[in-house]
Parts: sequence; C-alpha cells; structure tokens
Amino acid sequence: MKVNLNTRILSKNEQAAELNRGFLADHKLACLNLISSPGSGKTTILARTITDLKDKLRIGVIEGDIKTDYDAQRIRTAGAAAVQIETEGACHLSAPQVNWALQKLPVNDLDLVFIENVGNLVCPSAFDLGESGRVVVLSIPEGDDKPAKYPGTFANADVILINKIDLISYLKFDLQRVLADIAVLNSKALIMQISAATGQGMQTWYDWLMDQQTSR
Amino acid sequence: MKVNLNTRILSKNEQAAELNRGFLADHKLACLNLISSPGSGKTTILARTITDLKDKLRIGVIEGDIKTDYDAQRIRTAGAAAVQIETEGACHLSAPQVNWALQKLPVNDLDLVFIENVGNLVCPSAFDLGESGRVVVLSIPEGDDKPAKYPGTFANADVILINKIDLISYLKFDLQRVLADIAVLNSKALIMQISAATGQGMQTWYDWLMDQQTSR
Repeated sequence: MKVNLNTRILSKNEQAAELNRGFLADHKLACLNLISSPGSGKTTILARTITDLKDKLRIGVIEGDIKTDYDAQRIRTAGAAAVQIETEGACHLSAPQVNWALQKLPVNDLDLVFIENVGNLVCPSAFDLGESGRVVVLSIPEGDDKPAKYPGTFANADVILINKIDLISYLKFDLQRVLADIAVLNSKALIMQISAATGQGMQTWYDWLMDQQTSR
Repeated sequence: MKVNLNTRILSKNEQAAELNRGFLADHKLACLNLISSPGSGKTTILARTITDLKDKLRIGVIEGDIKTDYDAQRIRTAGAAAVQIETEGACHLSAPQVNWALQKLPVNDLDLVFIENVGNLVCPSAFDLGESGRVVVLSIPEGDDKPAKYPGTFANADVILINKIDLISYLKFDLQRVLADIAVLNSKALIMQISAATGQGMQTWYDWLMDQQTSR
C-alpha cells in the first residue's frame, strides 16, 4: 500500500467550504464574504446596494450574528431574501452554517449571495466559507491604525471598502497612512472610498459587483 | 479515598487568573480589563485619563494587540508605563500573558493597572484575566444595536463607557434603546456617557477610578 504524503486531510470546515464552492458554481452564483469590526456599516452597505441594484442584480444575504435577527429584518425591508444565523457566542461563521443557509435561500432566482459575517476584525478571516470573494470594510471612526493592527484580515481581502468617508473631515484619520499600510499587506486588493449613508462612491462598488456576476 | 465531585478542575487560564488575582491583591493594585470593538477609543480614553490623573493616580497599562506596539507607544507618550503583548493572531488576551506582563510593570509604584484587551467585542469577554473589574466601551458610530447583538460582553461589565458622545448629533443613535437593552442584560453596570476627544463626562469616570483605588 502506498500512502501519498502530499494528500492533505481537510478539516470539517474545509470540507464544507468545498461543498459550498461546488454548490455556488453549479448555480452560477457569485458569493462575497463581508468582514469588519462591529458597527462599520456592513448591513447599511448591503441595504443600500440591494435598493439601488434591485432591477439589475438579484441578491440574497446570509446574516451572521451572535444574537438577534435584526440584520436579516433590515435586509428583507430593503427587498432581498435573507437567512439569519445566530452563532450563540461563536465569533465567526463556519462553512457548515453557510451550507445550511444556502439551502434556505431561493438560489435559482439569485445572481449573488452576500455573507455578512459576525462583526469581528479577527476571527472570521481564518475561516474559508467557500466564497468567491472577500470584502473587508473599514470605517473612518475606527481609526487609521487598523490595517497595521489587524494585518491578517486586510491581507486576504479582494476589496477593501473604506466606509463613512463623509465623516473624514470631522475626525482624525490619515487616509494616506491607511493606503500605505494596506499596500504593504496586500497589493492586489481594490480599495474603494464610500459612504453607504450618503451614497458617495457607491457606483464604483456597484460596477465591480456587476462584473462579479458576469464573470461567473 | 474520597473524591470530592464538587472540586472543579481549573483550566490553565483560570489557574493563571487566580495567580494574577493573588498578585494584584498582594500589591494592593486595582486592575481593570477594557473590552470593546476595534476603534471605539480605548487607547484615547486611557491616554486622556493618564494625563488628567497624573498627580492623583499612578497608572500602568498592559496593551493587547494582534500586531504592532502602537498603543503602548501612545500610552508611554501620555506618561505611563506600558507593556505590549502582540497576540500574533489570537483574538483575546489570556491570563498567562497578563501574568508575564505584570512582572514587567513597576507594580510597586502603581495604584491601578489597565489591561487594554484586543479590539474584539466577542472573544475577550470569555476569558478571566484575574482583573478586579471589567469596563466595556461602546462608541456612538458603532450603532445602537450592539448591546442586543453582543449580549455576553455587555452582561459581564462593571462599567459601560458610551464614548464619542460628542458625535451623537451627527449620527443616528438611539441612546434610550441602548440604555433599555443594557438594563435587560445587566442591571448593576454603571453607564457613563463620555468623549475622550473633548473631555465631556470624563470627571464621573475619574471619580469612579479614584474609588477603585481607595477600595483596595
């Protein structure tokens, strides 16, 4: 008997992530994993995106929170299908949870699934959910030292949304420092300055989202 | 031989927390564990507190971050001794790390030690560090849904600082909702509305801190 030492044993999470990837490919669905601190504006970004793209992109959302289904309610009010996962203390979503939630969404009627992860700038970045892209949100009030202090999360992003950009003149925030720190960690990420509250910069984000759909 | 089934086996973290508690008591040191989301203003609160109380309270700080010693540098600039712990990915400080850091601080010349935990509203609340009190910071830009969405963290606080209160007129934030949600989770916590940037409300916080010292 020959044992191939190069065969990696997949963890339960990695196995479920692979299943999710296959499921999403079969259904020609783009899937974006949204990661940020609590209160950076993930749900507000999603609600505005759903409203503004309602005739162009059919969006479904998987919501992760320690507790409450407030975010899923906000998404449904904005006009999209949403499934809430309450992690009951866990600091991140897992691929098996996403697998369960994907079965609950009307996937045949969707172009794009957002996974809004638990508000946490550390733990979610270590768990592959089978997503096709990863979006990290940093909001201006959090301060300009966050990429350097949470490097793992920013290193693995495909897109970094700098949200609440409308507040920059009220707060101390050195945008050049943030861009320089991100450049060291991640040279490929697209960086977009937006305000989900005012709409500033959202068109660039929408253009990128439309490309995700058509590239599937 | 009789085995007492009521004897709990302590985890490594709990054992170290007990050691820390003994060490702090021996040195008549108050010790406060500061927990919040990234960017809620923990370091700014500490820096202002150190400056304003420099003739009244001898403060030392243990800083926890995934990466960088930026916060320890800010604390030293404000005039206090600081020890930085870089967790290299871990989402919270542990009691053995705090044990190590306490040995590095000039404890015989201090009245109060702050532990600024890793910016994370989930993980740190599950780990006893041997502290004498727990302070949770919620900042206005994070939004008014946070106590309901992160109940475990708010339930275990002795003091809840609502920071960046100077921004409340610029942002949607229902203070009554926050107070009502906290009241359900935690009836004993003292709640203080402050702005470490402007100084608003800080005196109440200082009065409470002075009491912590004298009650040791």
